Amino acid sequence: MNTTPRIILHEVGLRDGLQMEKAVVPTEKKEAWCRTLLGSGADLIQVGAFVHPEKVPQMADTDELFRRLTADKKSPAVLSGLALNEKGLERGLACGVELFCLGASASETHSRKNTGMGTAEAAQRIIGAAKAAAAAGKKVQVSVQSAFGCGFEGPVPEERVLNMVRAYLQAGLRNISLADTAGHAHPAQVERLFGAVFRLDPAIECACHFHNTYGLGMANIFAAMRAGVASFETSFAGLGGCPFTKVAAGNVATEDFVHALQLEGLRKDADLECLIGVARDVAAHFGRDMPGFVYKTGQIRV
Amino acid sequence: MNTTPRIILHEVGLRDGLQMEKAVVPTEKKEAWCRTLLGSGADLIQVGAFVHPEKVPQMADTDELFRRLTADKKSPAVLSGLALNEKGLERGLACGVELFCLGASASETHSRKNTGMGTAEAAQRIIGAAKAAAAAGKKVQVSVQSAFGCGFEGPVPEERVLNMVRAYLQAGLRNISLADTAGHAHPAQVERLFGAVFRLDPAIECACHFHNTYGLGMANIFAAMRAGVASFETSFAGLGGCPFTKVAAGNVATEDFVHALQLEGLRKDADLECLIGVARDVAAHFGRDMPGFVYKTGQIRV
Repeated sequence: MNTTPRIILHEVGLRDGLQMEKAVVPTEKKEAWCRTLLGSGADLIQVGAFVHPEKVPQMADTDELFRRLTADKKSPAVLSGLALNEKGLERGLACGVELFCLGASASETHSRKNTGMGTAEAAQRIIGAAKAAAAAGKKVQVSVQSAFGCGFEGPVPEERVLNMVRAYLQAGLRNISLADTAGHAHPAQVERLFGAVFRLDPAIECACHFHNTYGLGMANIFAAMRAGVASFETSFAGLGGCPFTKVAAGNVATEDFVHALQLEGLRKDADLECLIGVARDVAAHFGRDMPGFVYKTGQIRV
Repeated sequence: MNTTPRIILHEVGLRDGLQMEKAVVPTEKKEAWCRTLLGSGADLIQVGAFVHPEKVPQMADTDELFRRLTADKKSPAVLSGLALNEKGLERGLACGVELFCLGASASETHSRKNTGMGTAEAAQRIIGAAKAAAAAGKKVQVSVQSAFGCGFEGPVPEERVLNMVRAYLQAGLRNISLADTAGHAHPAQVERLFGAVFRLDPAIECACHFHNTYGLGMANIFAAMRAGVASFETSFAGLGGCPFTKVAAGNVATEDFVHALQLEGLRKDADLECLIGVARDVAAHFGRDMPGFVYKTGQIRV
């Protein structure tokens, strides 16, 4: 693994994790978690999503959080925000988002249910918003949701995913994440699909996001690393995950991933104790068992 | 993955899973689970362990279970039993064990605590018992416990593991399992160590057993598959796991592994519904949430 590039850690618990919870977490609590994470070595922290506050009340304080966090920010970590459309982009530009995450689904059904548009139209709309964010001087990551399978449709043809990646690349967008929204990905598929993506453009900045619905999240992360992916989206304590199943199957836990990386001799600079502390605080806040392992077992002392 | 050899499934829940439980499962229940598993496509089923019935009451009915199961057995699945010494071997020979699993630890401390002997002496004693089992016409698998790290000592030198493997090979024992007793293994280490083992003898029959203490079990399984390992020990519902931590961190669940294999186009002959049914019954019996994923989420319908 010595030739592995520096692994980039994108903590998405504040968004992907908290949006799935029934209870809304107080802004002060979110702010405290985020401030701790800013010193953890995580490279990017997703603060929230610019979605309708009545539809997703868990994310209603996203603008306020960005204002508070950017007011006195000293950490080099990048604060990211998820936007689904031009309105979200506008809100994000007004409150200090540093990197915009914008995505469209590769599944026709998932796309229509989420946006009322087919995949091609939704991708074009996301590309427009991404270009506007870039023109405003912001970092941008575009994603393909349901890239490895869909909770409604089942298999998603790889060519449909690659066509969306081609459209992003043609628009000059090179920071591209493939998201396993339903958790259907398996290691051989992950290596094959990312291999095909890198053949489109070896200089692409690939990210990935695997839900752990069927217990394959960590195996898929290692498969993506083998394919050359360097950026990984994970969630504290493993909170969050697939929105299609009734079971809270979770994400790969950030602290489990960093623990694994450090066993492999990677990202020794990241503050694992700090990440475990956040995960424990999150678990204590919700008062229930979380999917993460290391926050319960403690790290291996070697 | 087209060159992957046929993957061998060794279900160890009745032993590794149940021995960790406070409550003793009635023999009738164990028998019923095992009879169902005999039709699941699992290649080997570990029925129990020949240990002292007062020290490990959960395993006290192992002899009786073997007698019941072998009385009218028609399935080609092999019934395995764990023995730690000559006394266990004797009991196993008397009740119909088909494959003996015998092991010694690569960790000096772990070995002394378990057997009162150092690793070299314990390995020689196991080799003696294994040869006696083979001479009695039985199948034999020998294992190296704590092969990837020790809960007492931390890192275990790879050369110590390889020396035990060499001793097994010199004794003509070629079915060898490396067990990650503490759950310390990580993918790069797994590929490296199994690579070194296959260099000792490319025709070795390698098996492996990964505890999921730190969330890396499935990733380690896929790393072992890459290295050429074809035989995997897993546990229904993910029951069992590392004996060193106070947290019930679990095993890789058999049904999660088979689900993953089938996504990869492998072992389509195994009866996943049957395995999920056993896992659900086990979870219902204990009345608590188990580490497995697929028994809760259900399999992907594609």
